[in-house]
Amino acid sequence: MSLTMGGGGHRPPEQGIGGQARSAGTKDLANGHEDASRHRVAIIGSGNWGCVAARLVAFNTARLESFHDEVRMWVYEELLPTGEKLSDNINRTNENLKYLPGIKLGVNVIPDPDLEHAVEQANMLVFVTPHQFVEGICKRLIGRIRHNAQAISLIKGMEVKTEGTWMISKLISNVLGINCCVLMGANLANEIAEEKFSEATVGYRGDGEIAQRWVQLFSTPYFLVSAVQDIEGVELCGTLKNVVAIAAGLVDGLDMGNNTKAAIMRIGLREMLAFSKLLFPSVKDSTFLESCGIADLITTCFGGRNRKVAEAFARCGGKRSFDELEAELLQGQKLQGVSTAKELYEVLGHRGLQGFFPLFTTVHEICIGHLPPSALVECSSEMTSKFPHDEDSAQL
Amino acid sequence: MSLTMGGGGHRPPEQGIGGQARSAGTKDLANGHEDASRHRVAIIGSGNWGCVAARLVAFNTARLESFHDEVRMWVYEELLPTGEKLSDNINRTNENLKYLPGIKLGVNVIPDPDLEHAVEQANMLVFVTPHQFVEGICKRLIGRIRHNAQAISLIKGMEVKTEGTWMISKLISNVLGINCCVLMGANLANEIAEEKFSEATVGYRGDGEIAQRWVQLFSTPYFLVSAVQDIEGVELCGTLKNVVAIAAGLVDGLDMGNNTKAAIMRIGLREMLAFSKLLFPSVKDSTFLESCGIADLITTCFGGRNRKVAEAFARCGGKRSFDELEAELLQGQKLQGVSTAKELYEVLGHRGLQGFFPLFTTVHEICIGHLPPSALVECSSEMTSKFPHDEDSAQL
Repeated sequence: MSLTMGGGGHRPPEQGIGGQARSAGTKDLANGHEDASRHRVAIIGSGNWGCVAARLVAFNTARLESFHDEVRMWVYEELLPTGEKLSDNINRTNENLKYLPGIKLGVNVIPDPDLEHAVEQANMLVFVTPHQFVEGICKRLIGRIRHNAQAISLIKGMEVKTEGTWMISKLISNVLGINCCVLMGANLANEIAEEKFSEATVGYRGDGEIAQRWVQLFSTPYFLVSAVQDIEGVELCGTLKNVVAIAAGLVDGLDMGNNTKAAIMRIGLREMLAFSKLLFPSVKDSTFLESCGIADLITTCFGGRNRKVAEAFARCGGKRSFDELEAELLQGQKLQGVSTAKELYEVLGHRGLQGFFPLFTTVHEICIGHLPPSALVECSSEMTSKFPHDEDSAQL
Repeated sequence: MSLTMGGGGHRPPEQGIGGQARSAGTKDLANGHEDASRHRVAIIGSGNWGCVAARLVAFNTARLESFHDEVRMWVYEELLPTGEKLSDNINRTNENLKYLPGIKLGVNVIPDPDLEHAVEQANMLVFVTPHQFVEGICKRLIGRIRHNAQAISLIKGMEVKTEGTWMISKLISNVLGINCCVLMGANLANEIAEEKFSEATVGYRGDGEIAQRWVQLFSTPYFLVSAVQDIEGVELCGTLKNVVAIAAGLVDGLDMGNNTKAAIMRIGLREMLAFSKLLFPSVKDSTFLESCGIADLITTCFGGRNRKVAEAFARCGGKRSFDELEAELLQGQKLQGVSTAKELYEVLGHRGLQGFFPLFTTVHEICIGHLPPSALVECSSEMTSKFPHDEDSAQL
């Protein structure tokens, strides 16, 4: 039984051996020429999600006339236990043994340990690094990218600075002076690598044509992408859901059952919407019904790492710290919900609004050990009682 | 650690032994008189959810001045294996051994096997029977209820007749000539019986004051109820989510993973909203963010019986029928998603709209064996591609 659509999903083009003959794919060979007007893509990042993104993109650049086949993927160089460089290994095997073992990336994915070299020809830049590295990477790229470059961020998280809240896309835009869209959704990377049916949402600000180009670049028969003109809504969904996932994990660890978990997720979704509108009044309710909203929330609250560590935290009654459990359970992967909860707490504190976001606020206070995990349910009771019992309650 | 709110949740008033002295609770005794102006509640139904509803209501009628303590609960008479009548057993033990064993209902819940007698003094009628019995019960009650009676339906499902689609609340309203609200939500009955935190939504048509009386009657520290003026939206959420739960169960049985399940649930929610608006243009988007909407959908897609049987159906490749699996897995409880999917199929077929609801339509065709379970994912791909890739796609 085929579990993918469109007749079995995509297979990477036939592999070159030893890395040769990769810079030109079958499409270009068939046409017999290179076309400078074609869009060239660089992937900035080569972790788990970065490799899956590269694989999706490479499938499309190999088959679509408007894109140059080659996808450059910047690899933060590491030495493998064998002593081989990670970039050399990817080049040799067409896999990332460390972050996505067992999955061929596509022969037109070219690993490149030189950041500036990786991006120099590209006019479509896909940012998919851990969020704490974005600013430094962007600063290195000032003056090194093409003048007509467009960016998209697949990075979840935000930066809270003294001058306000910075979404990652805004950080990229401002440092590099280029337009930046976002792609978010219910996207556990390994499932997409296995070509299991998923969806995603592109958020954009003004230019729908550019958004459609990103949609085209990422869409495959098993990965359905829609665009919505609400970049802040889409990006905040991807960031805030990690805090709700901490709450969901606490409910799991407290053995509260399905009703409670669903109620906490619903209240969390409502705080996500309210917080997003507080920061950006232009945010649309309908964005929260897209893959980036409700679907990503479900995935993250049932399958993600924030949920997992929070469950463990509640099971030990908060007696071991999130840092300790993270190190034990995630093998080096990082938890975003805890730091995001802290950032929300600060933003809400500056505005004197913590009382209106009891779920977000309580999650932070539980994470730092000021409240026991069971406080979560008590705060939810307060939350609902703050709002009138009528149809306005869902609008917040 | 307390898992309930408000200091440990509710405990039923001290029990009478052997059923005596139950018709007057402590509140009336303290006042020393009966007040004819107090609202009197009857529960029509005494299954799993009926008993939990009776317990919630009895907690409030015992403590609130505006309600008469006594809650009459109509019991469809059965003989227990011991030979004792179910109603006698409930009266003697204050539990329903068959449908909610181990949970005291509250001494002010009075079981009554005589339907007409159970309702004759009540002005607040709570309908909570299997949906196929509602019409017959209402017909028996014509001319037997108080002229100022109000009703609320906790029943999920709808009746498709040649003259159109009948929601259960409309059926009750029309047969009895009385106003009827609904109460729906993420409400797995046994979890509420254990006083785990839950929410629910009252849907009403015109009279907000009556809706608030229902809210007051059902709300407890661990069961938070909100009212929305969108009876059709609330009731359709409760009905349609069972079809999405079938889809979610199929995804589970196909081992498709979290992304796919979240995507299918999201697409299902979108069809729920679109179908509701098709039938009733007044339906509000915000209703789908209430407990009756997204929260109930989550609960049902992760914990309910529709999901469970559909998973088993997919695991055996559709080689055993839903009827057979239902009988084997549910010990006499009934699955609503399969019959609702059939009803939706007919409604959409009459209007020539099946093509716009590929998930609903495909679920039915899978249930009756015309398509394999894997067709679900293929239809979802079509679904998304029917809609433009822009912000309108979430609005449907």
